[in-house]
Amino acid sequence: MALATITLTTDFGPASPYVAAMKGAILAVHANVQLVDLSHGLPPQDLRHCSFFLRAALGYFPIGTVHVIVVDPGVGTGRALLLVEVGGQRLVVPDNGCWTEFARLAADPPHVRQLTERRFWRPDVSATFHGRDILAPVAGHVSLGLDTALLGPTVTSWVDLKLPLPRRTPTGWEGEIVFVDDFGNLITNLPAAAASSVGPLRVEVAGQLIERHVRTYGEAPPAALVTLCSSVATLEIAVVEGSAARHLRATAGMPVRVAASEAASG
Amino acid sequence: MALATITLTTDFGPASPYVAAMKGAILAVHANVQLVDLSHGLPPQDLRHCSFFLRAALGYFPIGTVHVIVVDPGVGTGRALLLVEVGGQRLVVPDNGCWTEFARLAADPPHVRQLTERRFWRPDVSATFHGRDILAPVAGHVSLGLDTALLGPTVTSWVDLKLPLPRRTPTGWEGEIVFVDDFGNLITNLPAAAASSVGPLRVEVAGQLIERHVRTYGEAPPAALVTLCSSVATLEIAVVEGSAARHLRATAGMPVRVAASEAASG
Amino acid sequence: MALATITLTTDFGPASPYVAAMKGAILAVHANVQLVDLSHGLPPQDLRHCSFFLRAALGYFPIGTVHVIVVDPGVGTGRALLLVEVGGQRLVVPDNGCWTEFARLAADPPHVRQLTERRFWRPDVSATFHGRDILAPVAGHVSLGLDTALLGPTVTSWVDLKLPLPRRTPTGWEGEIVFVDDFGNLITNLPAAAASSVGPLRVEVAGQLIERHVRTYGEAPPAALVTLCSSVATLEIAVVEGSAARHLRATAGMPVRVAASEAASG
Repeated sequence: MALATITLTTDFGPASPYVAAMKGAILAVHANVQLVDLSHGLPPQDLRHCSFFLRAALGYFPIGTVHVIVVDPGVGTGRALLLVEVGGQRLVVPDNGCWTEFARLAADPPHVRQLTERRFWRPDVSATFHGRDILAPVAGHVSLGLDTALLGPTVTSWVDLKLPLPRRTPTGWEGEIVFVDDFGNLITNLPAAAASSVGPLRVEVAGQLIERHVRTYGEAPPAALVTLCSSVATLEIAVVEGSAARHLRATAGMPVRVAASEAASG
Repeated sequence: MALATITLTTDFGPASPYVAAMKGAILAVHANVQLVDLSHGLPPQDLRHCSFFLRAALGYFPIGTVHVIVVDPGVGTGRALLLVEVGGQRLVVPDNGCWTEFARLAADPPHVRQLTERRFWRPDVSATFHGRDILAPVAGHVSLGLDTALLGPTVTSWVDLKLPLPRRTPTGWEGEIVFVDDFGNLITNLPAAAASSVGPLRVEVAGQLIERHVRTYGEAPPAALVTLCSSVATLEIAVVEGSAARHLRATAGMPVRVAASEAASG
Repeated sequence: MALATITLTTDFGPASPYVAAMKGAILAVHANVQLVDLSHGLPPQDLRHCSFFLRAALGYFPIGTVHVIVVDPGVGTGRALLLVEVGGQRLVVPDNGCWTEFARLAADPPHVRQLTERRFWRPDVSATFHGRDILAPVAGHVSLGLDTALLGPTVTSWVDLKLPLPRRTPTGWEGEIVFVDDFGNLITNLPAAAASSVGPLRVEVAGQLIERHVRTYGEAPPAALVTLCSSVATLEIAVVEGSAARHLRATAGMPVRVAASEAASG
């Protein structure tokens, strides 16, 4: 008799009643479900941030976990709402591409339905808060074991948010910062293994060269600027016990170039 | 065999151990209850913000849910602590009026008891943290199904926090901003239906005229300043994919005037 | 059939996927456990703050509660990971001393094991995220009732983080601010009872004398600078309905001197 779990991920912030209203709307459908907050502090309407977040988090959950994701700049417009089953997870999510990067990690293709059956929604649906009025109750029903075919028809096209891919250059790789965490660590899209294949690294970001590559933060002294392998196995740029984002004034989207160290190749 | 739920709403912020201590004190009484965070980021000691928050959130929860609310500038003084049963919800709360706006939405009058029976409190009650020492254990007992008559006597008067009401003017309505959400959307106390009854709207706030009324954010381009119907069915002022609070330097309490658009009436 | 609980305390912040990944990694081991957030907003890598936080929070939880704590500047270095059983609580924690102040409150000596048995970890262990790869799954196994002797050998030495002790001076006591809460209240390490034993108090902090001692915030008018007994029974410095931290530009570590009031002794 397992405890069903629904996770919640939003950009609603700490002070508004929107997260609370969604939780109420879920529990009103399924009072016995465990609610698990993933984050309510995603940058507002930042689909790239959300995309990386989901890619780095959802795969750790047990098979069948239901995830409600509400970063939804298109609320109330014609954009669809979806139930996506992929990688063993079940996502209830606006059709804005925030989930497609996660889906690319999965072995199986996504199975996607459009939410069209109003009998699983709240009776009154506002124009500005579909998270509360549609996604929350639908997630509740899914967690109860509802046959998901009842929620709406299967669809075969959706918005695909393509994150930029790193590319090979004559001397190494070029990619970009795809995520800045709360410590100010800069996570890139360069697979750490590929980057390391060029030999001892020289990394260029924000006009700065970094030649110190470590296995973990503690291998360099406080305030050292280093590269290492991130927890999602890509190249990461960090200041030990400090903030690389602040030190380099770096933000998501900035280019990062990797080449063999001259010292090594010279 | 339903899972009982206790929600927590405080102004304690992210870094202090106060939320944690309250959760421990609840679980020490009822280890099997589900704890659900509504927010711990309410503005400190801001009863109006708390009042709007509860009004916009509590009604969505299943009947019988227990809610602990600790925005409590009067902790340790003579102010009473209450168990309030209204609108199907059960609130454990200081007597400071933060719940009365929510109660006004309910069909039934509130049933209110003063918490006086120390045997349901922690043995040592501090002067500065009744949330942990009284409200938390009482909520635990209520969620266990305790006969609430044991908690203390029924009372028939309490602090009533009256939020300002909008009023009719010769040319339309005058109300105020009652809440600013984390996106910077400005929620007013003007019922959207009443405001719309004057015809095409001209809204004046912070010295600015707004004549563009939309059904949802996506109907106007990014950076457009618009009015729309909020998720609590009042007039809302928003900047599409931006912050109206920052754009207008607007805060809760600012007046908002609504009149028929001259274009429409002229 | 009690619901097992695992609490989570980290310095990961609101926007990163690290908390989410840890929650997934716990539920993947024990899907029926209740996850309870204590805080994810601890100041980054601030072991003293974490130490006070745990000391002020953990003791309230029911016996046997499992707590995962990840403030871990030494991740990936040789620092050990521990299961600590003390004061009825079970902590899964890096060996950095953040828990020893809590242990000093307990009647029993801590029983400590080093986590060495990789079969209870995630199969791939990164160099930068042991919270997800080791502590989370181990906590899941502990909450399932695993014989903790299987996790690794008992150890008898560990990093001990000694918080500064207050000391007697010719005229009273000298201690320091050990914690600043989100309201800006300054919590000191001076036991309130000892401080009060000198008679009516004169407290000196940040070059300012405070002679007004109250039982609770509401006894003085808004903006008054006062001392009182904190919720952990030490001397606290507060501005009523304001922030003593901002008013005094005070931070953790600042000295606080207590003497008998001249008015009283003169």
